[in-house]
Amino acid sequence: MTFDVGAVRADFPILSREINGKPLTYLDNGASAQKPRVVIDAMTRVYEQEYSNVHRGLHTLSNISTEKYEGVRGIVARFLGAPDEEEIVFTTGTTEAINMVASSWAAPRLEAGDEIVLSIMEHHANIVPWHFLRERQGVVIKWVETDANGDLDPEAVLAACGPRTKLIAVTQLSNVTGTVVDVKAICDGARDKGIPVLVDGSQGAVHMPVNVAEMGCDFYAITGHKLYGPSGSGAVYIRRERMEEMRPFMGGGDMIREVTRDAVTYNDPPMKFEAGTPGIVQTIGMGVALDYLMGLGMENIAAHERGLRDYARAKLDGLNWLQVQGQSAGKAAIFSFTMAGAHAHDLSTVLDKRGIAVRAGSHCAMPLMEHMGVTATARASFGMYNTEAEVDRLVDALEFCHELFG
Amino acid sequence: MTFDVGAVRADFPILSREINGKPLTYLDNGASAQKPRVVIDAMTRVYEQEYSNVHRGLHTLSNISTEKYEGVRGIVARFLGAPDEEEIVFTTGTTEAINMVASSWAAPRLEAGDEIVLSIMEHHANIVPWHFLRERQGVVIKWVETDANGDLDPEAVLAACGPRTKLIAVTQLSNVTGTVVDVKAICDGARDKGIPVLVDGSQGAVHMPVNVAEMGCDFYAITGHKLYGPSGSGAVYIRRERMEEMRPFMGGGDMIREVTRDAVTYNDPPMKFEAGTPGIVQTIGMGVALDYLMGLGMENIAAHERGLRDYARAKLDGLNWLQVQGQSAGKAAIFSFTMAGAHAHDLSTVLDKRGIAVRAGSHCAMPLMEHMGVTATARASFGMYNTEAEVDRLVDALEFCHELFG
Repeated sequence: MTFDVGAVRADFPILSREINGKPLTYLDNGASAQKPRVVIDAMTRVYEQEYSNVHRGLHTLSNISTEKYEGVRGIVARFLGAPDEEEIVFTTGTTEAINMVASSWAAPRLEAGDEIVLSIMEHHANIVPWHFLRERQGVVIKWVETDANGDLDPEAVLAACGPRTKLIAVTQLSNVTGTVVDVKAICDGARDKGIPVLVDGSQGAVHMPVNVAEMGCDFYAITGHKLYGPSGSGAVYIRRERMEEMRPFMGGGDMIREVTRDAVTYNDPPMKFEAGTPGIVQTIGMGVALDYLMGLGMENIAAHERGLRDYARAKLDGLNWLQVQGQSAGKAAIFSFTMAGAHAHDLSTVLDKRGIAVRAGSHCAMPLMEHMGVTATARASFGMYNTEAEVDRLVDALEFCHELFG
Repeated sequence: MTFDVGAVRADFPILSREINGKPLTYLDNGASAQKPRVVIDAMTRVYEQEYSNVHRGLHTLSNISTEKYEGVRGIVARFLGAPDEEEIVFTTGTTEAINMVASSWAAPRLEAGDEIVLSIMEHHANIVPWHFLRERQGVVIKWVETDANGDLDPEAVLAACGPRTKLIAVTQLSNVTGTVVDVKAICDGARDKGIPVLVDGSQGAVHMPVNVAEMGCDFYAITGHKLYGPSGSGAVYIRRERMEEMRPFMGGGDMIREVTRDAVTYNDPPMKFEAGTPGIVQTIGMGVALDYLMGLGMENIAAHERGLRDYARAKLDGLNWLQVQGQSAGKAAIFSFTMAGAHAHDLSTVLDKRGIAVRAGSHCAMPLMEHMGVTATARASFGMYNTEAEVDRLVDALEFCHELFG
């Protein structure tokens, strides 16, 4: 394997800092990832030397910014295996992407009684936009549960689809349990039924190679800040046929062709869905982050993280006083757990004293928490720069928590 | 006057670069402003040392990021003179803010035949969201024209309001002509009629002190990247009574209180209107930019820019082959112009050869262009770091254009 985790770590300035006198052990990657030096420097360079608004400018700085910004569309298309960069719409993240699909594609098409199929382990970003359609126009949400291991059976998703089902919206990778969903099987079955599929790639695209053409989805959303890119960046792949069915999302500059007092005509996709001055510099930074990931190789990253997962799973399974939620065999290196006698928030606070950053709470996935019968978990979510030594530090700290609270 | 333009210029790294072998003369501030060193450094510092997702984290980095991010709400409130920082909602810019108001406040309240009053000089960001309501639910847009000088009479705006008028939406400062609107007079009259007022502060807040409490508006939107802050940052002041009338905008994390399979309850404002992971680092950067502006003093900035305006106006008025659009006495230092025999795009290209960045086109204000009888102008829009020497460079370059194209 060509993946050198030490070299990768050296690329991330924050990883050499200490927290409470201990080396930072950053295991909150499910919430957001840290940024490599190349991403930070690329943004600084734009602001110091090249910044301007994009599109329609004719001066040198505007041309530089526009070229760099628009160049990211092709980078995202390559990263996602999208057939055409014009099927890539820039967003501020997956939340905006899914709201765009709900507002621009679903809202004008779905009628009262039409159904949307969701898995029980969706993030709120892939639930609340559909609740809006339920509240506002009587759309029905159908839930598909996970099994005792935390796995989602693609056949169960397809079985939940009826004649009124207009969309399946499903995560590729649970941010709580790390469960990986066979979204290709869902897409294959949905195609036979003529049902579009939205895949929430917030977590999936971070931990495995993605190819939307092979997957066969209609919508695939990613979030830059989880992909080692900047705050407020993101993109969504939208299959061309779906794009053509969509009305605009937000109104403003760039998404129009002509505005008069009485009428407005819209730009072609993808610009039709990008209103106003976009997140220029963070989008450029996201492009650098994706190039960095492709340089390392998503297969190599996935292999490294499988090693971490196996190592961590063996260690955590040995702690018989720790309840790990979700035992899916092919899961990602994301571990949500509870400990009798200790609230998840207390675990997080004690771990922080040892420099270990984990998240505690409901992880924006309350229906899943209710399904699992817990109100909160602590979550250690690993990224490509994490090491087995960091797993050991986590386990040592959990053993300390067990002594403290047990 | 305590404003030292040389010291301000030294704070902006990009201003010392050259374009085509000439010092950069950046006169495209209406499209976007450059960033001072403190803003760039603040963002780098977060990414290198302090970055994490915000809210609900309990570890050290999450606490640092949350504290810095949430601290910006109070900075924005001070900058805008808002009574309460809970009346400040973070956005990605004015486009998102106005779309939020259109979608969350207006769409559920306005019926077919209800009217929205706009000035003819609105930016597309303050037109297209209202066209959506016209297209989708039969709302009527009433236009108020500017006079021959480019001024907007507040009485004409109020006279356009009838019993069906539900909102006045008006810019404080035209991005094309620099015309300043007496928005306080409009708000005063509108209050008597019980009509809420949205003020597009994209340009206004950059060039003059703003106090929304004194102004009496209901909505006031700003864009961070025009305020010498980062890409993709912004905020909107929303009067508390209006906030209480608004449904959520986007759905996702942070904006909810509880999500179940069958229902969703929403967080209190302002969080109710902020879905998903926000633009953490750019919002922190915007706070630094606003602090920087308040440190210089908006009155001082306005005085410096009045000097630039008077100097530029006298020089440009002396060019009898140049047609400057908009002669409002109290205008800002924004000059849109045409030259017989030369397309605006050609002017921009020739100026760029001399290092001068101006924009050419319709400036996202097609109804105003049509009203003025032009299809495109070149626009020199000054910012606080511009100088009289730069006016001279612009005038020299325009004289060269006159020789070239005349």
